[in-house]
Amino acid sequence: MLKPITGGITSPKGFLAAGVKAGIKQSGKEDVAVIYSVVPAAAAAVFTTNDMAAAPVILSREHIKGGVLSAIVVNSGCANACTGEQGMADAQEMVKQTAELLSISPQTILVSSTGIIGVTLPMAKVSAGIQQAVSKLSVEGYDNAMQAIMTTDTFAKTIAYEFKLGGMPVRIAGIAKGAGMIHPNMATMLGYMTTDANISSPLLKQALDKAVSLTFNMITVDGDTSTNDTVCVLANGQAGNALIDDAADPDYLLFAEALQSVCRYLAQQVVRDGEGATKFLEITVKGALSFEQGKKAAMSIAKSPLVKTAFFGQDPNWGRILCAVGYSGSNVQPARTSLAIGGVTIVEAGLGARYDEALLRKVMSEKDITVVVDLGLGQEEATVWTCDFSYEYVKINGEYHT
Amino acid sequence: MLKPITGGITSPKGFLAAGVKAGIKQSGKEDVAVIYSVVPAAAAAVFTTNDMAAAPVILSREHIKGGVLSAIVVNSGCANACTGEQGMADAQEMVKQTAELLSISPQTILVSSTGIIGVTLPMAKVSAGIQQAVSKLSVEGYDNAMQAIMTTDTFAKTIAYEFKLGGMPVRIAGIAKGAGMIHPNMATMLGYMTTDANISSPLLKQALDKAVSLTFNMITVDGDTSTNDTVCVLANGQAGNALIDDAADPDYLLFAEALQSVCRYLAQQVVRDGEGATKFLEITVKGALSFEQGKKAAMSIAKSPLVKTAFFGQDPNWGRILCAVGYSGSNVQPARTSLAIGGVTIVEAGLGARYDEALLRKVMSEKDITVVVDLGLGQEEATVWTCDFSYEYVKINGEYHT
Repeated sequence: MLKPITGGITSPKGFLAAGVKAGIKQSGKEDVAVIYSVVPAAAAAVFTTNDMAAAPVILSREHIKGGVLSAIVVNSGCANACTGEQGMADAQEMVKQTAELLSISPQTILVSSTGIIGVTLPMAKVSAGIQQAVSKLSVEGYDNAMQAIMTTDTFAKTIAYEFKLGGMPVRIAGIAKGAGMIHPNMATMLGYMTTDANISSPLLKQALDKAVSLTFNMITVDGDTSTNDTVCVLANGQAGNALIDDAADPDYLLFAEALQSVCRYLAQQVVRDGEGATKFLEITVKGALSFEQGKKAAMSIAKSPLVKTAFFGQDPNWGRILCAVGYSGSNVQPARTSLAIGGVTIVEAGLGARYDEALLRKVMSEKDITVVVDLGLGQEEATVWTCDFSYEYVKINGEYHT
Repeated sequence: MLKPITGGITSPKGFLAAGVKAGIKQSGKEDVAVIYSVVPAAAAAVFTTNDMAAAPVILSREHIKGGVLSAIVVNSGCANACTGEQGMADAQEMVKQTAELLSISPQTILVSSTGIIGVTLPMAKVSAGIQQAVSKLSVEGYDNAMQAIMTTDTFAKTIAYEFKLGGMPVRIAGIAKGAGMIHPNMATMLGYMTTDANISSPLLKQALDKAVSLTFNMITVDGDTSTNDTVCVLANGQAGNALIDDAADPDYLLFAEALQSVCRYLAQQVVRDGEGATKFLEITVKGALSFEQGKKAAMSIAKSPLVKTAFFGQDPNWGRILCAVGYSGSNVQPARTSLAIGGVTIVEAGLGARYDEALLRKVMSEKDITVVVDLGLGQEEATVWTCDFSYEYVKINGEYHT
């Protein structure tokens, strides 16, 4: 039983956070965040698979190998990607300064940057921001930290739950940023989860990998896989539950479910805040021969600009949906394929079905819409989440500053 | 030496065409076309790889096996795709009626449909249209035939050349339709070429495959591979040149080059008329380890909504371009990668270079823009063509009727 609670990423015991205005963003909003665990925390993370991975990603990949982190330092407004040796030196400097200010080892710090690609960090501003953020670390700082990781996001994405492990109350929370350049491949955008659960690093990684594969890796906004995607979870054990270090422990399953719930909520929020989004689309492909085939077909639908613009136009253009399934590379037999939108069956055995037009119009006018394709071939299924393609998407991305 | 000539697809000797208004399109414009060779012509074609291939594609795949065609019958306004057994019966009926009216074998007819998916053909209108079109076949009918294959196209795409084979003047011409659902995979949209060259079917197919792989298969508008893509060439031998039936014959190379020129022109015109396009982008990836890797990287750039909206906004956002190369799956080493837009080098060794900002602004404001990425890894290269993503793209596809 997960009970939603307030308090964001500092609601789990032993976590502090801060977000400050360092002047990196042109808007003047918060742009440097520090998240800190008062004791070293078991940690796991997944990163972008983009070959142009940003300097902070390359550095953080090294730091996470130890399985223990004490802090996360993030800046927005500049991605520190495609910045070569200078970029790597800057990422290292961010870590070094944070480590000195917190008196912890640099190896226990994860660093992220998000924003424009190809520009080096304004390190004087970044340094001043880190200094200020560390000085402001508090339980109340969760909201400012959330603000500081946002770029084109229009609302904050945060969630916190309480549940019980062996009778002890345990909290788990997370924040994420998204909006554009969202198409996960192994990991996606920035997501940070904190928990006071007591769990070993290897099991934390196992739980994170599974959760990400079914949540963050099942969303797409525009098909672009960012250079900076990072999802990280810190578990500092302050809840006092018995250490979870066996995947067969029922507490592991409870924890893994809680983590997946946090990831699913955040991933869906990222889609809801997709650049220019007016619709939230849940696309399920069932009757597939494998999860991978189902995912391939569902992602093909979710990525199709023709499908996305049709939903924006509230047009149940099912031909475009079947067309996207047809070129997805998944096994498909037209005569076995059916399709329902918002519970209204509009294709049966590959052909247009009779349906209640008024009902379908109502479905298409809603903000949340489900699309279910049944391939009729097997027992597996996959669900992905995406948004529509609107004028606003073009506006945001045509006018984003370089 | 290719000499551009007038007269469209009926400029090669022995071809007649017609396009008529059958009332299939809501707009009331031309929607049934017939192209006819007065003698059986060697023929070759390539079709969509979409598993939801339309009925006319399935039927035409059978008919092209003989390597000989006498006529092509096309309707626009309805794609006859995802229409099951009724769709197949309707495609067969179109062929049967055309065959009877022209007194030719049904097996020598290629049939195509384009337009909305999932709706069956209004056969009474189609039949009347075929009857009228056959009765109007003429050398002057090329323009109406062109009009009749268009859907959301905003201009006609047609080209005709004259060149010499063994001293004999030979003509080759083509028409194409495109605009939306354009992302070739083996073949793309509708393209029909006529020539009075005398060439064997197998060599015609060889020349067509190569031409398509370097032209129609190198364009993308929106990444969607249609259910109806068809490219077909008829060679009726009326020019009287000596039969080309040996790939080592210099005339074969001359013919293949002419065919490729026609295909390249038409493919580029399809991109120029991409739905909502305001820019024509030629994207070359060189220094690749193979043509396939170069194509993968170039297509990744060409398909990225973030890149396409940036060009619409006239923003030289090179981070998005390198990001798209990074997730393309092509081999890439950031420190070896360089990038030039419109001849202005803006990335060297993976880092932003100094450049003339005024010059780059001028480049970005032009309609035709070249993008050249050098991976610095090998000797191979690939060039693709695409357009930008504009408000108009969203408008056209959000409001297209279902």
